[in-house]
Amino acid sequence: MKVAAGIDIGGTNSVFGIVDSGGNCINSGTIDTELYDDPEKFVSDVYQDICGLMEQLPAGSSLEGIGIGAPKGNYFNGCIEYASNLKWKGKIPLAGMFRKYVSVPVVLTNDANAAAVGEMLYGAAKGMKDFILITLGTGVGSGIVINGQLVYGHDGFAGELGHTIIDPEGRMCSCGRKGCLETYTSARGIKQTARELLETSNTESILRSVPPESISSRMIADAALQNDQLALKVFDFTGKMLGLKLSDAVAFSSPEAIILFGGVALAGDLILKPAKKYMEEYLLPVYRNKVKIIPSMLYAKNAAVLGAASLAWNEINGNMSDEL
Amino acid sequence: MKVAAGIDIGGTNSVFGIVDSGGNCINSGTIDTELYDDPEKFVSDVYQDICGLMEQLPAGSSLEGIGIGAPKGNYFNGCIEYASNLKWKGKIPLAGMFRKYVSVPVVLTNDANAAAVGEMLYGAAKGMKDFILITLGTGVGSGIVINGQLVYGHDGFAGELGHTIIDPEGRMCSCGRKGCLETYTSARGIKQTARELLETSNTESILRSVPPESISSRMIADAALQNDQLALKVFDFTGKMLGLKLSDAVAFSSPEAIILFGGVALAGDLILKPAKKYMEEYLLPVYRNKVKIIPSMLYAKNAAVLGAASLAWNEINGNMSDEL
Repeated sequence: MKVAAGIDIGGTNSVFGIVDSGGNCINSGTIDTELYDDPEKFVSDVYQDICGLMEQLPAGSSLEGIGIGAPKGNYFNGCIEYASNLKWKGKIPLAGMFRKYVSVPVVLTNDANAAAVGEMLYGAAKGMKDFILITLGTGVGSGIVINGQLVYGHDGFAGELGHTIIDPEGRMCSCGRKGCLETYTSARGIKQTARELLETSNTESILRSVPPESISSRMIADAALQNDQLALKVFDFTGKMLGLKLSDAVAFSSPEAIILFGGVALAGDLILKPAKKYMEEYLLPVYRNKVKIIPSMLYAKNAAVLGAASLAWNEINGNMSDEL
Repeated sequence: MKVAAGIDIGGTNSVFGIVDSGGNCINSGTIDTELYDDPEKFVSDVYQDICGLMEQLPAGSSLEGIGIGAPKGNYFNGCIEYASNLKWKGKIPLAGMFRKYVSVPVVLTNDANAAAVGEMLYGAAKGMKDFILITLGTGVGSGIVINGQLVYGHDGFAGELGHTIIDPEGRMCSCGRKGCLETYTSARGIKQTARELLETSNTESILRSVPPESISSRMIADAALQNDQLALKVFDFTGKMLGLKLSDAVAFSSPEAIILFGGVALAGDLILKPAKKYMEEYLLPVYRNKVKIIPSMLYAKNAAVLGAASLAWNEINGNMSDEL
């Protein structure tokens, strides 16, 4: 059996696993990223764990590649560059560190790009050549595919739609600027919208029984599902902000579909419907009723591992088709 | 000598010419588009004129391809689709009409895309694989190149950065929506900004001696060159609006450069400098001081013809390298 390894690196912990070419995650493991001051030691331990997973496979199985999704991962040089949520400072040549152990392709990029390739090979974007994946979670990221290729840009850092600007005088963003899409549509942004609406309106809401600082995005979604008018307003506003910037993104690359991924996207129609409604309203007429907004189809337990492994499969298959 | 024909179709008149593979426009002609109710007759006459231009070339010269820049030109099907500034309504299969006369490649897309390919082959983007061209004229258009390829999107209509939205409650746009970039940075947008500033401020200005409705964007540029404070404010505001949306565009595709093309771009540093200043201010830190803003280098008499012909050369060369 030919397999690839997928590794998703997070600030607290990292997950990794073995994935076959059909996109089935065979086995997996986790490791505490934050325990490692030395990335070389981290790579050594992850590699040992991957070897352990490989030993559980049928005899003759071969590791064909390694895909890594990591914060600030640069495809071109295989480095993690100045990731603020990792202990490792500066430029960390993580792909190169893995290449000391293996001679198969090692591919590194950021987690949103990995998810986009995962959707293209195994998920909601199968068969599509032009689509955009938006991750709505703690932050807001994106992976953009044009003409079947992931967009890296000239420096490897393309695709930061979470940091396109809605209002230059708007909410303070973690990036140091104001009014980024992320400040409105991340989990944190949604919570802020709820707190603001609770403060500035008199709308009845079951959320009023919770201390404002304890309200989670999950609570807001649960309230909205119970037809709580304030919670529904929160999602309407979130969808409006998202729809506005999606209309800009469509004017850029005219994709066939936009795929919503990540924790906030689990709210399903609560976010999909207003996002679609407002996107259509803001779209240039030539694009109207052409662009689907759909949920991720990688919501398996190991979506992040699958996305990372798909980077390796995409590279292997791409090189194979070049040779044919 | 091997040559390509370039045709730039405008609502009033169209220009065409013969261009060698080095990007030299050898000869050219014009035709009154608006005199033709029938696109078939237009194509027939343009083709005859091109044959006339070919006869002036050395014996043995061959026409290798035809490139056409046209409003709402769709690369995928070779049609002009519902162009509001042409007499021809609906979908006009213009490339197909030319193919009745020739068996060489005929390529059609919009004028901004043609200009982008022209810059890539012969102008300011030589050797670049990732850049964005913005046309600042009567309208605002764009041609986007990623990884050496023009971005067409899934329907052929990608790259309408002039219709990304600055303010959903902003100025009325010709597209029927509000607050598009075009309403602030087109020639018309600049004139409106000047009229608004004249009305709402007491700043002294030589423009006050002209009836507001007669102020042209050229007059504003001339005034700014004479250090007229109000005219300088107009360009500062225009650059701010442009810089804001360019920062969004950079977050999308992380280009090496942005090229300003068209009548308004002829104002040079008056628009380049504030656009650069504000773009840097609005950019996500990871992109700062990496992206050049440069003027077009196709400002020859026949820039539009050169851009259109480059579409043909790009197709011919692309197919040649596929065969190698």
